[in-house]
Amino acid sequence: MKENRIYNFNAGPATLPLSVLEEIKESFLNYNGSGMSITEISHRSVLFDTIINDAIARIKRLLHLDEKFHVLFLQGGASLQFCMIPMNFLHEGNSADYVNTGTWSTKAIKEARIQDKQIKVVASSEDRDFSYIPKNIRFSADAVYAHITSNNTIKGTQWASFPDTNGVPLIADMSSDMMSRPVEMDKFGLIYAGAQKNLGPAGVCLVIIRDDMLKMVPDTLPTMLKYTTFTSKNSMFNTPPCFAVYTVQLVMKWLEETIGGLEKMEQINRKKGQILYDTIDSSGFYTGTADKDSRSLMNVTFRLPSEELEKLFIHEALGNGFGGLKGHRSVGGCRASIYNATTIEAVEVFADFMKTFERKNG
Amino acid sequence: MKENRIYNFNAGPATLPLSVLEEIKESFLNYNGSGMSITEISHRSVLFDTIINDAIARIKRLLHLDEKFHVLFLQGGASLQFCMIPMNFLHEGNSADYVNTGTWSTKAIKEARIQDKQIKVVASSEDRDFSYIPKNIRFSADAVYAHITSNNTIKGTQWASFPDTNGVPLIADMSSDMMSRPVEMDKFGLIYAGAQKNLGPAGVCLVIIRDDMLKMVPDTLPTMLKYTTFTSKNSMFNTPPCFAVYTVQLVMKWLEETIGGLEKMEQINRKKGQILYDTIDSSGFYTGTADKDSRSLMNVTFRLPSEELEKLFIHEALGNGFGGLKGHRSVGGCRASIYNATTIEAVEVFADFMKTFERKNG
Repeated sequence: MKENRIYNFNAGPATLPLSVLEEIKESFLNYNGSGMSITEISHRSVLFDTIINDAIARIKRLLHLDEKFHVLFLQGGASLQFCMIPMNFLHEGNSADYVNTGTWSTKAIKEARIQDKQIKVVASSEDRDFSYIPKNIRFSADAVYAHITSNNTIKGTQWASFPDTNGVPLIADMSSDMMSRPVEMDKFGLIYAGAQKNLGPAGVCLVIIRDDMLKMVPDTLPTMLKYTTFTSKNSMFNTPPCFAVYTVQLVMKWLEETIGGLEKMEQINRKKGQILYDTIDSSGFYTGTADKDSRSLMNVTFRLPSEELEKLFIHEALGNGFGGLKGHRSVGGCRASIYNATTIEAVEVFADFMKTFERKNG
Repeated sequence: MKENRIYNFNAGPATLPLSVLEEIKESFLNYNGSGMSITEISHRSVLFDTIINDAIARIKRLLHLDEKFHVLFLQGGASLQFCMIPMNFLHEGNSADYVNTGTWSTKAIKEARIQDKQIKVVASSEDRDFSYIPKNIRFSADAVYAHITSNNTIKGTQWASFPDTNGVPLIADMSSDMMSRPVEMDKFGLIYAGAQKNLGPAGVCLVIIRDDMLKMVPDTLPTMLKYTTFTSKNSMFNTPPCFAVYTVQLVMKWLEETIGGLEKMEQINRKKGQILYDTIDSSGFYTGTADKDSRSLMNVTFRLPSEELEKLFIHEALGNGFGGLKGHRSVGGCRASIYNATTIEAVEVFADFMKTFERKNG
């Protein structure tokens, strides 16, 4: 590949569109004729205002958001959201529903419980090692919100469609599939995503919040922990992570102008997933770890007949220019993360490698 | 200047060493032969471990830290620290002292009070519009900590030396003068600094905490809001802001290897301050806004005889390639921020401009 770049299947931080990286590089010493690097310009300047507002406008267009929604950039990743969500919305006498589909849902549940908040785990796939997405869930009619994790990077599962909650606002951690497909936003009160998979570099968390949710935010919270601080100051109560926001802006521009929107992005992602899952299903060598109806289009998790072969596979893949294929340290196995910026070509070349490896070792 | 870069006197985000920016640019598509951008590598990789550990080692050497101190990288800026400090250290029956030297101290005090914590403002320079640093402060013997802001970017004041607290651990917001001079760390329990002035880009906050302070951290806090989460995981409980940490690493390398340490950095900063303050004091045209014994070596604040002349000054300065000279939106006037990365040459050329402007308009 160009500039000796590898095919990067990292789970996050992950590969970014090459054209975005090239644009950042090109203007890194002098952004937009300012005579300063993007890392040196004031967040109170017209230059930066233009960047953040363009990023927000593109996100609104891509997700077809109406004026009910606020687009925010926070720090602290999804992990800080796990704590802020119950802090902002769950008060004395209120309860929320959580669905547990793996490590990240478990962490979200833990952070609500640390704060002694009233929550109910209404469904879980822990009985079969989080290899599927629960179905026919009965949400509580009086829940303040219902929390789900839309994609599980570790186990390779993804909600194919979002559940009906009978009007209870859904809150979703979309860290690993945000902007990978259109979303029926009228179901959601809040969605959030650490940027480092589909949106940009690590260091910024995209939060989209519906206006009526803000009524629940107590005045008594510390300033940096309440959503109203960010909605009232266009995410600039204090200095935002400017470089990360700028990169998100460029990735959103790429999504709109090069890819052509989320409907197109979804088609490409479906195609990429199909290539890898077909390779797995047509072999007697590779085994997918997730139930077929719960398979993720972002993280394709699979096993080989033995751990020795998995080690060899990962080693030979690296030698052939394919990086990031080791499964999460908590589960082992193999994982190919194929986020938005992974090209169909990269997936095809990798599928060929998988077939060759199977022929030699199967 | 090279690549049509301006002389950047921004208050933050601020100018960075050109050699650092050039190194980032050069390797942006392929970091250290990895075939990936720095924005695309995993934070769980040996590559990133090397970066963060080298940054920590350099910070420890620069500040002559012994093993009592932990070096951490957090998100949320100094503003999140305003809230975390009382949350972690102030419990039922305890009290802390605060010194109020301006906007940022006031915000720190506000965040303690929002949480209903017991604090005492033991000194303030509000009586003369925060134009000086209070002297002969009597700290409370039973305070859990004493909080100060080492440099006030808005009013252009700076603690010339740190107060004696009779053993009460000092906590300092050093956002705008961290690493600008050596620090007697044996006085401090915790120091913190948003990176975007002397350390790197916006998006990471350096926290240095003494080990014994950790004993005060309650287990019951949300995970992302307790310091022990960051000390126990080398700042990688969740994905850190990798690009910002990497830039800090390069800036620390520049401080050690190009500048030659904090003692040398202080000499350079003293020289830069002297050039500008001499220009102000020898003129009947410019007036410094801070008391002479409280003047900041980082932010030189001054007024011209009229607001019209200030407007003209800022306008003509920009035309001559000097940016960022407008005073903070809350106070007006002029401000030249001359952090570590501002060269003596830049300050000399700017002082010449000031003299020329005075001759033409004085």
